[in-house]
Amino acid sequence: MEGLAKFPPRPTGAGAMFQLLRDGRPRTRAALVAATGQARSTVAARIDALREIGLLAPAGEASSTGGRPPSTFAFDPTSRIVLGVDLGATHARIAVTDLAGEPIGHLQEPLAIADGPTRVLDWVAEAGAKVIARAGRRADELVGIGIGLPGPVDHTTGRPVNPPIMPGWDGTDVPGELYARLRAPVLVDNDVNIMALGEHRTMCPTVSDLLFVKVATGIGAGVIMDGELRRGAQGAAGDLGHVTVPRAADIPCRCGNTGCLEAVAGGAAIASRLRDQGAAVSSTADIVDLVRAGDLAAGQAVRQAGRDIGTVLAASVSLLNPARIIVGGVLSEAGEHLMAGIREIVYQRSLPLATQHLRIATTGAGAEAGVVGAAHLVTEQYLSAASIDTLITAKEDS
Amino acid sequence: MEGLAKFPPRPTGAGAMFQLLRDGRPRTRAALVAATGQARSTVAARIDALREIGLLAPAGEASSTGGRPPSTFAFDPTSRIVLGVDLGATHARIAVTDLAGEPIGHLQEPLAIADGPTRVLDWVAEAGAKVIARAGRRADELVGIGIGLPGPVDHTTGRPVNPPIMPGWDGTDVPGELYARLRAPVLVDNDVNIMALGEHRTMCPTVSDLLFVKVATGIGAGVIMDGELRRGAQGAAGDLGHVTVPRAADIPCRCGNTGCLEAVAGGAAIASRLRDQGAAVSSTADIVDLVRAGDLAAGQAVRQAGRDIGTVLAASVSLLNPARIIVGGVLSEAGEHLMAGIREIVYQRSLPLATQHLRIATTGAGAEAGVVGAAHLVTEQYLSAASIDTLITAKEDS
Repeated sequence: MEGLAKFPPRPTGAGAMFQLLRDGRPRTRAALVAATGQARSTVAARIDALREIGLLAPAGEASSTGGRPPSTFAFDPTSRIVLGVDLGATHARIAVTDLAGEPIGHLQEPLAIADGPTRVLDWVAEAGAKVIARAGRRADELVGIGIGLPGPVDHTTGRPVNPPIMPGWDGTDVPGELYARLRAPVLVDNDVNIMALGEHRTMCPTVSDLLFVKVATGIGAGVIMDGELRRGAQGAAGDLGHVTVPRAADIPCRCGNTGCLEAVAGGAAIASRLRDQGAAVSSTADIVDLVRAGDLAAGQAVRQAGRDIGTVLAASVSLLNPARIIVGGVLSEAGEHLMAGIREIVYQRSLPLATQHLRIATTGAGAEAGVVGAAHLVTEQYLSAASIDTLITAKEDS
Repeated sequence: MEGLAKFPPRPTGAGAMFQLLRDGRPRTRAALVAATGQARSTVAARIDALREIGLLAPAGEASSTGGRPPSTFAFDPTSRIVLGVDLGATHARIAVTDLAGEPIGHLQEPLAIADGPTRVLDWVAEAGAKVIARAGRRADELVGIGIGLPGPVDHTTGRPVNPPIMPGWDGTDVPGELYARLRAPVLVDNDVNIMALGEHRTMCPTVSDLLFVKVATGIGAGVIMDGELRRGAQGAAGDLGHVTVPRAADIPCRCGNTGCLEAVAGGAAIASRLRDQGAAVSSTADIVDLVRAGDLAAGQAVRQAGRDIGTVLAASVSLLNPARIIVGGVLSEAGEHLMAGIREIVYQRSLPLATQHLRIATTGAGAEAGVVGAAHLVTEQYLSAASIDTLITAKEDS
């Protein structure tokens, strides 16, 4: 029977039952018996196991048509905490959330990713400890850290892969470095993926197919199909910034190619063009300010960027048939100029079957999408059936 | 307790346990006890239930270090049959398979989809009965029919949606019409999706992200991410034929737009261009014959089509980061001319992270991919945990 040792941890069945309770609604023992098809004694044992590890709590009594009303149990998301971290080129945001991904404390500061991993991850550790303490929680309640980086990440190892704007980070063992500082498991993804996840989970969790596009200094996308982030074979899915657009054919891009979308429609490209016209812009935020102040040239430049982004999104709509395109990133704050350009081309260039129910909108989750999405990376893994079975087995063995 | 009636059919647990056995390997009771964490009596009852509905069969005795060797059980895919149907513009293929999707009989005939649903579905019913009988099986062993149509299909209702080359089919209740003829549940999808599924399941089931491109009279793709077909919000995902390519900017397409990929690189477009040059070609198959005969103009036209397809695939690689691009359809039989054009542009235009492990190849499953994929649509639904639980409950109630 030696071969049996090779099987994965023995499922307790409690992790599977817990999935029914993820929605937070209180349920009676009888309801859980009916939903799982398990014996009453089995269900009772699983409720006990889930209460032991703190994930389930009594939730009052159900209404009754007579006799003693049955007690109910519900997922208690407040029992543990998670850190969500969103690192941009020049800013950092961190939030502490409960197990439902609901933020209970925040912090944000200017921080240059180019300062390198040691300094930046030191900041994450200090800021993390600070938001946890301020929220009145303890470090030993932390079950994991989700972190988004502004560059390509190998999702399985958590290491950045040739990130263009992150000098010193290539191949850094981010999970190992952060674990050494905060003593909790770490999940790493790129910033656009965590924004897509945060937007989806908080604003439209029932939409199955969504494309989240971040338009800032660079341009990237997060792909959600059938309700989950799809990262592709190397975690590079959504890299729209370097798709060719005809209008840009001869314009060189920092990636070494020519004609990339980012090279005509990214914030850096627009800013440089406006500077050539004599405007005083040094950042994507400056472009947004100009557009909001009614500057005609800036408005036109942003609308044209919208059209260029639209040509790439039209192809993406044909390929993925999303129900929503959500536009975020600093340039999305320029309002209707960007969106009008995008909508003009997407609705003109995609097939009717793919666009008749398509909605194109700016982010609803806003600047918080990233940290909340990063926290969801962790809660979704922590609350999976296999993870809970492992927690229960560890508790029983201790 | 009236609310309980609203719960879905009570899980028996046998369906979940069966998923472990889907790989076909024989297992002992003890191995199933270890893998499920369930009591020996529970596992024994589930084995009995699965044997009752014919999905599990004794598979001999395991080796033993002493004492009576324990008996083993394995999934018996031969217990039921499935029909897989692939309807093209001018041909029809049908196969009868077992529950593993393994074909045990075939038939193919010229058939015009434009003859309309009544005539075509009559053919499917007759040909289906014929292949079942020839394989020595009975109609009452048929658990379902998977069918691929050469046009957009609403996957949830199984109805074609404005299919351009299927006059008379718009909105047809294909599942209802086929059920009336063959008395088995029907799943409908478009022809490229079933080809993608057939290619994936038979040739590279462990590859998680794959893009299957069909190049024939028209051009379309099937998207597999994280191991499953992704259809998008309206089932229109993969519709690459109408993505704009710069070189085609002014060329009108049958869809009403201009500049579509299909209008320059589809078989119909290439044939028309070669005819303008005086060649006697009337079909995509004629182009393949010319290329194989060494015709220079045909070879060049196909290579250029490959480059045009490559520009759209390069954008798709950036968006999806697939590990494989598989090229099928009649024009893929033109050999290296098409593939060289595709590879030239994809490797030049996509980012290194997305292409370093990307393989681009012609179909390995070939003409059979469609019928096998259509059969897999059915087997995967029929063998799901929920479906098996329903079968068991129905058997117990009968």
